[in-house]
Amino acid sequence: MNNPLDRIRIVLSHTSHPGNIGATARAMKTMGLTQLWLVNPCADPDGVARARSSNALDVLQGARTCATLEEALDGTVFAAAMTARSRELAPPPLWARAAAPQIVGATAHGEVAIVFGNETSGLSNEETALCRLPVMIPANPAYSSLNLAAAVQVMAYELRLAALDPGAPPAPENPPATAEQIRHFHEHLEAAVTESGFLDPAHLKRLMPRLRRLFDRIALERDEVSLLRGMLKTFMKKPGDKVD
Amino acid sequence: MNNPLDRIRIVLSHTSHPGNIGATARAMKTMGLTQLWLVNPCADPDGVARARSSNALDVLQGARTCATLEEALDGTVFAAAMTARSRELAPPPLWARAAAPQIVGATAHGEVAIVFGNETSGLSNEETALCRLPVMIPANPAYSSLNLAAAVQVMAYELRLAALDPGAPPAPENPPATAEQIRHFHEHLEAAVTESGFLDPAHLKRLMPRLRRLFDRIALERDEVSLLRGMLKTFMKKPGDKVD
Repeated sequence: MNNPLDRIRIVLSHTSHPGNIGATARAMKTMGLTQLWLVNPCADPDGVARARSSNALDVLQGARTCATLEEALDGTVFAAAMTARSRELAPPPLWARAAAPQIVGATAHGEVAIVFGNETSGLSNEETALCRLPVMIPANPAYSSLNLAAAVQVMAYELRLAALDPGAPPAPENPPATAEQIRHFHEHLEAAVTESGFLDPAHLKRLMPRLRRLFDRIALERDEVSLLRGMLKTFMKKPGDKVD
Repeated sequence: MNNPLDRIRIVLSHTSHPGNIGATARAMKTMGLTQLWLVNPCADPDGVARARSSNALDVLQGARTCATLEEALDGTVFAAAMTARSRELAPPPLWARAAAPQIVGATAHGEVAIVFGNETSGLSNEETALCRLPVMIPANPAYSSLNLAAAVQVMAYELRLAALDPGAPPAPENPPATAEQIRHFHEHLEAAVTESGFLDPAHLKRLMPRLRRLFDRIALERDEVSLLRGMLKTFMKKPGDKVD
């Protein structure tokens, strides 16, 4: 099975600022997208575009330029139009999160495209009509104007999550304490608080569970249990005891 | 109940590029965040920062500058550290999507902070240690370096979705067809395909459900049913009939 992200074209139509084209290449690569298509950009990618692409120069340099949106959609089986508002003659839009699985699902049948309009004017009604699904990013109604590359970043993020299960984040490799180690720690702690006189036996039954609950919330690691027990041992050492 | 987003501080530590500070202000405002804190920025917000903030100049101009991260965290009850990798002495990280409800939940108790490090070096271990929760954005392992403002955009997007139910996206205000209108259309269609000779009555039972299924998938609007019935009427008009 191919990676669905390889079949997704990010299409920028009539982009004004080369910096946004570079930043889009970077946003795409961080999420594993590679196909950048430019429809009649107002300026060719330049030094600013290259700088903003950072280490995604390969995506920027692999970009294909077309004269019309029809050309960029040639060979696709599904196209989504990113839009900031609903339009009278278009189908009801979906939020980015709801649209992502549908877009990724369509890659099973061939190439798909997600089309982003000009920074100021967005997509024309004619361009939107060439796409099957309008997609919106939920935003502050008082200021909903995401930067172009920022909108690509959010959509690419949703597509990556819809396409690939990221599993659990990489955790530090500190082994957790076993149940037995925790039990020994609790016994040690109880001995320490009574022998030290911190808790008198009359209050032990009420307060020991609170102390345990406090330490249980830490999800103690193996080394930390050793550390704490070593500390308790030191506290309970009587003057003149030898340190072992 | 206050808006939880008002209690979230976006803290940028040791930012190198003023443009990223401006772009962060814009990313924040599009998602309804307003509190920007700058810890020892390598350069003060300048003309580039203002240009990149676009119409979020209020957020940029309201930014507070501190000398240390401790100052920026003063008065918070919870802080999350954005990081690109897990660190040995830190708690296990959460993905942005899993962390967002926890961060928003913490606003019930007071102000919270989300801390973003320097563009090149990220957060130091000392800075991470001042935060309770490391948070990661799932990214392409071969190139996981999101632009700073792009990372803020993704995290702010997750926070907005965790804080506010966006409801359904605004749909075009075209009333859907009623069940009765759809039934009449089906009757009209059936009459048209038989009277026209397109389907002979022997095949009607098998093919009519397929025709209906085709049109049902469109979720026809009221005006569209009128349009289609008008079309059928024209098709069925016998030569010499008057158009009504």
